[in-house]
Amino acid sequence: MSRQFLAEGGITLTGGGYTIVGVVAVVALVALAIGYVLLKEVLAAGQGTAKMQDIAKAVQEGAAAYLKRQRNTLAIFGVIVFLLLFALPADDWSERIGRSIFFLVGAVFSFTIGYLGMWLATQANLRVAAASREEGGREKAMRVAFRTGGVVGMITVGLGLFGAAIVVLVYTGQAPKVLEGFGFGAALIAMFMRVGGGIFTKAADVGADLVGKVEQGIPEDDPRNAATIADNVGDNVGDCAGMAADLFESYAVMLVAALILGSSAFGASGLIFPLIVPAIGVITAVIGVYITKARAGEGGLVTINRSFYISAVISAVLSAIAAFVYLPGSFAEFGDSYAHNTGNPAVIATVSVIIGIVLAALILRITGYYTGTEHKPVKDVGKTSETGAATVILSGISVGFESAVYTALVIAAAVFGAFLLGGGVALFAVALAGTGLLTTVGVIVAMDTFGPVSDNAQGIAEMSGDVDEKAAQILTELDAVGNTTKAITKGIAIATAVLAATALFGSYSDAIAKAVGSTGAFVANIVSPETLVGVIVGAAVVFLFSGLAVNAVSRAAGAVVYEVRRQFREIPGIMEGTTRPEYGKVVDIVTRDSLRELATPGLLAVFAPIAVGFGLGTGALAGYLAGAIATGTLMAIFLANSGGAWDNAKKLVEDGNHGGKGSDAHEATIIGDTVGDPFKDTAGPAINPLIKVMNLVSVLIAPAVVTLTLGGGADTTWRIVIAVVALAVIVAAIVMSKRRGSVMADTPAEAKA
Amino acid sequence: MSRQFLAEGGITLTGGGYTIVGVVAVVALVALAIGYVLLKEVLAAGQGTAKMQDIAKAVQEGAAAYLKRQRNTLAIFGVIVFLLLFALPADDWSERIGRSIFFLVGAVFSFTIGYLGMWLATQANLRVAAASREEGGREKAMRVAFRTGGVVGMITVGLGLFGAAIVVLVYTGQAPKVLEGFGFGAALIAMFMRVGGGIFTKAADVGADLVGKVEQGIPEDDPRNAATIADNVGDNVGDCAGMAADLFESYAVMLVAALILGSSAFGASGLIFPLIVPAIGVITAVIGVYITKARAGEGGLVTINRSFYISAVISAVLSAIAAFVYLPGSFAEFGDSYAHNTGNPAVIATVSVIIGIVLAALILRITGYYTGTEHKPVKDVGKTSETGAATVILSGISVGFESAVYTALVIAAAVFGAFLLGGGVALFAVALAGTGLLTTVGVIVAMDTFGPVSDNAQGIAEMSGDVDEKAAQILTELDAVGNTTKAITKGIAIATAVLAATALFGSYSDAIAKAVGSTGAFVANIVSPETLVGVIVGAAVVFLFSGLAVNAVSRAAGAVVYEVRRQFREIPGIMEGTTRPEYGKVVDIVTRDSLRELATPGLLAVFAPIAVGFGLGTGALAGYLAGAIATGTLMAIFLANSGGAWDNAKKLVEDGNHGGKGSDAHEATIIGDTVGDPFKDTAGPAINPLIKVMNLVSVLIAPAVVTLTLGGGADTTWRIVIAVVALAVIVAAIVMSKRRGSVMADTPAEAKA
Repeated sequence: MSRQFLAEGGITLTGGGYTIVGVVAVVALVALAIGYVLLKEVLAAGQGTAKMQDIAKAVQEGAAAYLKRQRNTLAIFGVIVFLLLFALPADDWSERIGRSIFFLVGAVFSFTIGYLGMWLATQANLRVAAASREEGGREKAMRVAFRTGGVVGMITVGLGLFGAAIVVLVYTGQAPKVLEGFGFGAALIAMFMRVGGGIFTKAADVGADLVGKVEQGIPEDDPRNAATIADNVGDNVGDCAGMAADLFESYAVMLVAALILGSSAFGASGLIFPLIVPAIGVITAVIGVYITKARAGEGGLVTINRSFYISAVISAVLSAIAAFVYLPGSFAEFGDSYAHNTGNPAVIATVSVIIGIVLAALILRITGYYTGTEHKPVKDVGKTSETGAATVILSGISVGFESAVYTALVIAAAVFGAFLLGGGVALFAVALAGTGLLTTVGVIVAMDTFGPVSDNAQGIAEMSGDVDEKAAQILTELDAVGNTTKAITKGIAIATAVLAATALFGSYSDAIAKAVGSTGAFVANIVSPETLVGVIVGAAVVFLFSGLAVNAVSRAAGAVVYEVRRQFREIPGIMEGTTRPEYGKVVDIVTRDSLRELATPGLLAVFAPIAVGFGLGTGALAGYLAGAIATGTLMAIFLANSGGAWDNAKKLVEDGNHGGKGSDAHEATIIGDTVGDPFKDTAGPAINPLIKVMNLVSVLIAPAVVTLTLGGGADTTWRIVIAVVALAVIVAAIVMSKRRGSVMADTPAEAKA
Repeated sequence: MSRQFLAEGGITLTGGGYTIVGVVAVVALVALAIGYVLLKEVLAAGQGTAKMQDIAKAVQEGAAAYLKRQRNTLAIFGVIVFLLLFALPADDWSERIGRSIFFLVGAVFSFTIGYLGMWLATQANLRVAAASREEGGREKAMRVAFRTGGVVGMITVGLGLFGAAIVVLVYTGQAPKVLEGFGFGAALIAMFMRVGGGIFTKAADVGADLVGKVEQGIPEDDPRNAATIADNVGDNVGDCAGMAADLFESYAVMLVAALILGSSAFGASGLIFPLIVPAIGVITAVIGVYITKARAGEGGLVTINRSFYISAVISAVLSAIAAFVYLPGSFAEFGDSYAHNTGNPAVIATVSVIIGIVLAALILRITGYYTGTEHKPVKDVGKTSETGAATVILSGISVGFESAVYTALVIAAAVFGAFLLGGGVALFAVALAGTGLLTTVGVIVAMDTFGPVSDNAQGIAEMSGDVDEKAAQILTELDAVGNTTKAITKGIAIATAVLAATALFGSYSDAIAKAVGSTGAFVANIVSPETLVGVIVGAAVVFLFSGLAVNAVSRAAGAVVYEVRRQFREIPGIMEGTTRPEYGKVVDIVTRDSLRELATPGLLAVFAPIAVGFGLGTGALAGYLAGAIATGTLMAIFLANSGGAWDNAKKLVEDGNHGGKGSDAHEATIIGDTVGDPFKDTAGPAINPLIKVMNLVSVLIAPAVVTLTLGGGADTTWRIVIAVVALAVIVAAIVMSKRRGSVMADTPAEAKA
């Protein structure tokens, strides 16, 4: 493949170009405005009884307190990374400053969206629970839940698009470098919010279940369980805040990748077209959110899928029109330096975008099939509950493996399709497929938020006791739908990781080729042992990260188990319901532990590529990224889908199949669900931002690695010092986490009383 | 890196060279003779009571019947592959015929060793059980078990070394191409024996446990359980036959890789030195087997480790002496065409071999730490049994992930170390590290065989009731040691897979470079989307293969559950012990099912690289191999070690910890062990031969792919036809296996009566 990149700075926007990007920025602001309108509608909904409001308030306070403390922790981390980033080589001061400033902007946006997502969800939970009690409750509850998602979706795409458009307007030719900072900020904070929130939610959930359901035999969300508020707080800080930040990050990084590659493929048009496609996505997302109305008698997933497909088709049609109107029929029209590429730019762009949209639809279908209660896989997992927990675990693992394979193959096919199609602009075509995927993000976020909001509404209903049987049934159904939509989001998110990473690989080679000063492209030959070693190390880091995340949940859950048992033992009247347990204590414990646990996987993500790059060289680092992407994709989907399948298999049994609640089969599926909890809500979803962070760290350090390796600036001592320091940080972080004991086994002895 | 390969055929052995290779062949024959002497000793041991002999006979007959039917199945497959191989491009008729003939030789050797391993184990089980009853029973039992392993070890290294030496003697310059056939035959049959035997052993085991232990509450190996003979047959056909074939394959393929690379790096010496090192290994293995004597009061693992370390040190010293005596101090002495390489060949060879030996020792230690009952990880998993099965599963998965990461990093470090050291002959240095690893294989096989022999001895003891408490205790201890040694073997086997694959990558590029006709080396740039897609597909195939294997076990176990329940229901007097269950029926069912289930993963392994290579090209195929190697390594160790940890955690509880037998904690660890069964004995160990098969298929088809892709012979139609046919075979195989139903869920309704 010929070299794809030109030196930055050579591109300027014409007046028309500025106008279009300006329009995109306005569209982004309109998205934010529509988000505000939807928000008003959600907040206007009824809030139910005083008891329900009481509970919701406790959850709101706990969630806000957690995010406040998390903000303080992340701020310190953010400042350190800001300084490191500032110290890295750059072409000039404008680039250096812009990159660092927009790193902060990306980070702040990411956190803000997470915070808003969480805050809104805690408001919405109550209102969904309240709506379920009214007449036509099912439709009303579903509407509030989905509109809530709509708000988060609008803010996500609005801020992502606005940020990128501003960078293009201000920096034009230097935009790619500045965007690296923006994407990195978004990804880094999203990763921490995913990991921290993921540990919080599952530590509380697993801890609550182990003492409540398993030991004391009281139902989920029973107010006598001291961990129950923490559990509900967790749903909001993990599934809402973490997820919203994660999807914002996916959106931003994908857009960044497309813009980085755009200018070298299509000239100035390449900085504009990747903004037009997501702007179209904003329009169709609005349509998607407004048309989502449950028809009588149809399952919740059917309604949501319909909105998705309608908005996907509109996106495809509008993108095709935009491509043919805006892009010429030959590369020569972009200017002489693009004339060597063959093919029709308008056709390449159209088909690439459609590939992305079709990819989203396929992931939706595959995930729906493997994790939905109405299809064979989950039914099979449910059936194996009759032969005990071991077969439930094995069948769930099989479902996870299988669905991961098919999803990964579909993603690989999309990359390969865009690659074949793109010819000389293959990487940009892959990135455009990514922007096609992005047109669906608005609706996807709305779908995802649906899950935790329904879950929490159910919690509030259960705890307050103010919701009747029929309303409870509605909320249970919505919760099951939510399990599937959550799994779908994770599939889409990991697809953006692969597409963005493939595209960013181009940026990585370019950074190296530029630093080397050669005119040929950078080559990391995979058949060379150093590259292969990199691939193995990259795959290993994904396993390590997953193991650390699962371990962190086990440890933090152990502390919850200890505290809940203590309260049952020491505070009289809890079991009889006459005394209220000290909910706040458990929230505090989980807050403290999850922020502490967050450090190890976070440091691993940032420092592992540094250790590999400086220690083993650029070829090994390229292999490292490839290994992490491939294994990360499969692992993320495996963890998400096996967890989703177990959760829904449990719901099947609770719906009265295979013996129903309280049977041995139910017991077996509860074990499956507990195993799946840290899989699907902690380790799995954090892999997506992990890949992005490692990718962007690699792109950012590549010039420094090359400088220290080759030419006049070569300095083996410094190179090794940096590698050793990075390795030492990782080892210290792992040792630190080991010293906190391993798994639940180290819960103090009295906990077992 | 400069091009490493020279056209074959330019190398001739001198008279001295022939003598040395001849001596190596004699050493190989001596190994076989020593194996025979050890065999005599084992067979001479006492055979216990008539009842014990009865049971052993049933196991022997079942195992022989299974292997006979497997031989017939594999023969058909072997002939088809033989014909395909014959049709592939070759330089001349001598190469074509030699490659195909030695494919058959490799296949027959592989099967023979598997058969002998199994036959011998069924003889030894009885004798170990008998020895445990005698005075000084522990030492005697251990001696018989370890000597049995010694026989298998001697045959493995003897046949592997003999085959390779003969090829070198007969074909000299063409030996590399012919050796590809030899290695492929060995790997292909080993993979089938691993998969088939793995499904057999775990289907019987899981099926027996689900009805026996879980439903009827009777102990393991209780004669009233109709699946109990099948379970014991399984230990022999899976853990003995499959393992022996697998280790032979590891030995042969590693040797093949070293010899392929040798001639281009060291000239004629490069065909000889890789034979000298394993010949030294034979000598030290003999020492290792003979010095293994249990001292009073020390754990079984301590004894075995001591033998390992002593023989490892002797190997290192002798290899260093051989290198300095036989190899010169400069590359120029090999001839002008080698003079451009820098460094001291003797030093490079010595250090590389030592890297391999140290690698083996490190894997031994890491695996011992993570799966041994006396270390923290297994103790922790044991402790988590107090909070139920879910925490047992989660902690076991953490242990598996963690140990996989450290093992993979150690392997990667060995590859990187040899790579750095080797300079211009980097790949050969990696291959020499592999031969270092091989010097330990004799002892490793002996250690591994120890496991299933002890396990079966315990089974015979339990079933016959003729073994007292003290003797039973001895056998239980040996069984726990066996769990760890089995995990160690898998770690070493997968290390050979990585080293051999890294080295074979060189052969792959060479085949392509030669076919392309360019003088430059083949380059698959990992930052190119097509290569990255290959990496993802390669990782996906490992997940798919693992999922298929686990699923196959679940399905076959379902049939066992059904049959055992039927016998309990329909045959009166079984539960009272007055009527003997129909053991043979269950053996027949498992035999039939495991041979049927073996096809899908087997076809996947052979046809996936064909589909990728012809469909996506040589770059994608290189990426595919890298992805499969990296993910395969981690997955294999994860599966092996989490399974080993669960098994030993159960043993800990059964030893009276955490409530002991019959407690809730015991129940929780049984669930863990059942989940671990197909992990550690079916999916995990089959990944090693899977990687080798895929690698060798790629090397063999590379010239054909290039011919159809480039130059005068380019033919897109044929290329696509081949890819589509290969894909169709895979899809058909998967659909076939899906149609047999998924997991245990589809056991007929009456099974639930």
